[in-house]
Amino acid sequence: MGFPDILSIISSDLEEVENELEANIKSPVPLVYEISKHLLGSGGKRLRPAVLLLSSGACGRLEGRERIYSAAALELIHTATLLHDDVVDDAKLRRGKPSSNIVWGNKATVLVGDFMLAKALGLIQSCGDLELIKAVTDAAAKLAEGQVLEVMNANNMLEVTQEVCFGIIENKTASLLESCGTVGAILAGVEDGLKRSVGQYGFNIGIAFQLTDDALDYSSTEEEFGKGVGQDLIEGKMTLPLFYSIQEASSSERSKINDILVSEEVFTEDDLSFVRDVVERYKGVQKTNDMAENYIDKAKKAISLLPDTPYKSSLDSLAEYIVDRRG
Amino acid sequence: MGFPDILSIISSDLEEVENELEANIKSPVPLVYEISKHLLGSGGKRLRPAVLLLSSGACGRLEGRERIYSAAALELIHTATLLHDDVVDDAKLRRGKPSSNIVWGNKATVLVGDFMLAKALGLIQSCGDLELIKAVTDAAAKLAEGQVLEVMNANNMLEVTQEVCFGIIENKTASLLESCGTVGAILAGVEDGLKRSVGQYGFNIGIAFQLTDDALDYSSTEEEFGKGVGQDLIEGKMTLPLFYSIQEASSSERSKINDILVSEEVFTEDDLSFVRDVVERYKGVQKTNDMAENYIDKAKKAISLLPDTPYKSSLDSLAEYIVDRRG
Repeated sequence: MGFPDILSIISSDLEEVENELEANIKSPVPLVYEISKHLLGSGGKRLRPAVLLLSSGACGRLEGRERIYSAAALELIHTATLLHDDVVDDAKLRRGKPSSNIVWGNKATVLVGDFMLAKALGLIQSCGDLELIKAVTDAAAKLAEGQVLEVMNANNMLEVTQEVCFGIIENKTASLLESCGTVGAILAGVEDGLKRSVGQYGFNIGIAFQLTDDALDYSSTEEEFGKGVGQDLIEGKMTLPLFYSIQEASSSERSKINDILVSEEVFTEDDLSFVRDVVERYKGVQKTNDMAENYIDKAKKAISLLPDTPYKSSLDSLAEYIVDRRG
Repeated sequence: MGFPDILSIISSDLEEVENELEANIKSPVPLVYEISKHLLGSGGKRLRPAVLLLSSGACGRLEGRERIYSAAALELIHTATLLHDDVVDDAKLRRGKPSSNIVWGNKATVLVGDFMLAKALGLIQSCGDLELIKAVTDAAAKLAEGQVLEVMNANNMLEVTQEVCFGIIENKTASLLESCGTVGAILAGVEDGLKRSVGQYGFNIGIAFQLTDDALDYSSTEEEFGKGVGQDLIEGKMTLPLFYSIQEASSSERSKINDILVSEEVFTEDDLSFVRDVVERYKGVQKTNDMAENYIDKAKKAISLLPDTPYKSSLDSLAEYIVDRRG
């Protein structure tokens, strides 16, 4: 099933989320609106609002502005971290367009990210539910920790363990998607065990999503992916496709990769294709995708006790879409 | 009265705020703690916690962890914006020490700022009061808008109006101090009119604080000020000492300043001392300080109806200290 079909059941809610996003990025300072609009209007998938709205629906809550406010808030938090990420990574492209740091510079980009975070927390506060606020602020703190962990380990690729790779993924991507599930369940007023289960759904699809992203970075084309491929390597970030491949590589391949990674020089085209060849030879992309499939199974299992509704089916389809996507 | 004397009445509360700050910057990621500690441990004045605790006391609330949590949260928000400011301004020094962006780079600095914001909002949420959360998130959004407004108008000094100068000050500095007063009053459970008055106290000392800072940037020495002097000019920021002086300057002085400001070149020592001489000649620093005095009067007036208590006296003394300080 394609992404639009999965979301058709919440399409009118998603439209309201768009209106809410638009209302929140309006600012008396024109540049704030312009930068916010550039990224928010560039065709993001609205995965976080979708998980929240479907989770809420699957738990039996289909009405109420709080769903819209919190869905918009989580998309704003996500968008704010993309803005900060692009500054941190010196990114050039985001969703196929020049990234904000390139168009408007690092300064305004950092600050508009802060503005979005503040707006997001205003929206979350307007839901009037302290448990919900806690779920979101806890996730936001983990997210920031995950990003620092990634920066700390960048350019130190050979020391990175599988545990660190997963720690980064869990904090950086999975925790916010976990909170989307949890918030949906909180809004539906279900009991705590079910809140945790729906949170686990979000957490596991979050890991699968990031693993798929890391695999695409070694296997996609720029056109499909909407950003440069091979970026993780260029930015000195160890991800699982390379990690798995290095474990299997011959000692001479490993030593050459070692030389490439510790070199202070900018990677040459030859370096990049050597690394990509090793990743292909030892099936690093395939192993990462297999791992992503495992997490999708975990996600689906987490919500298996929910009653059968179109919302639950859409959550299942969404989980499958995440590992099948091409960009 | 010196700053320590003003604060003696809340010294045990301020110690608890320090403990709470320390507990919140602890992170499993060592770099997060290190960067946070570097700035938080560098002798900030804890002006925001002080305003909050004194306001709460002046409104009759002297006990309760919520005062400590919210005071720590507002200091964390302030500290996070300093981290982001230093990245935005390419700062070299902060409180007499190399700034975080210089020691650890822009990337980690931006992200640790985000971490602090998230922690702050977790603390605010733990106070369990939605009105309080709203006061803080509204202030955080204004703060970010004020910073973008400043960046937008940087390097465009000749176009900046007095209105824009004040707009930046109100959003960037006054709104957060306003929320400190408001939160103190909310915690004391006083009626809305009094909340607004205590908020106005914070707002007006905030403007006075920033005006004094802007004056010190033209009149202090680096040793006293703890950061480079003349920085506003170097960063292309129009502030009131120069704004007022330009209004009075002769047409030849104005035309020379014009040439200096529009030049794409880095300012020379001669340029800087020419501008500083004009500011001295036309008493730009004195006029800015006089303006700051006006705002201090407004601040004291705003709380004149509060009952006479040692807390109210300390708020009055704090207002006076703000314009009398030398760094």
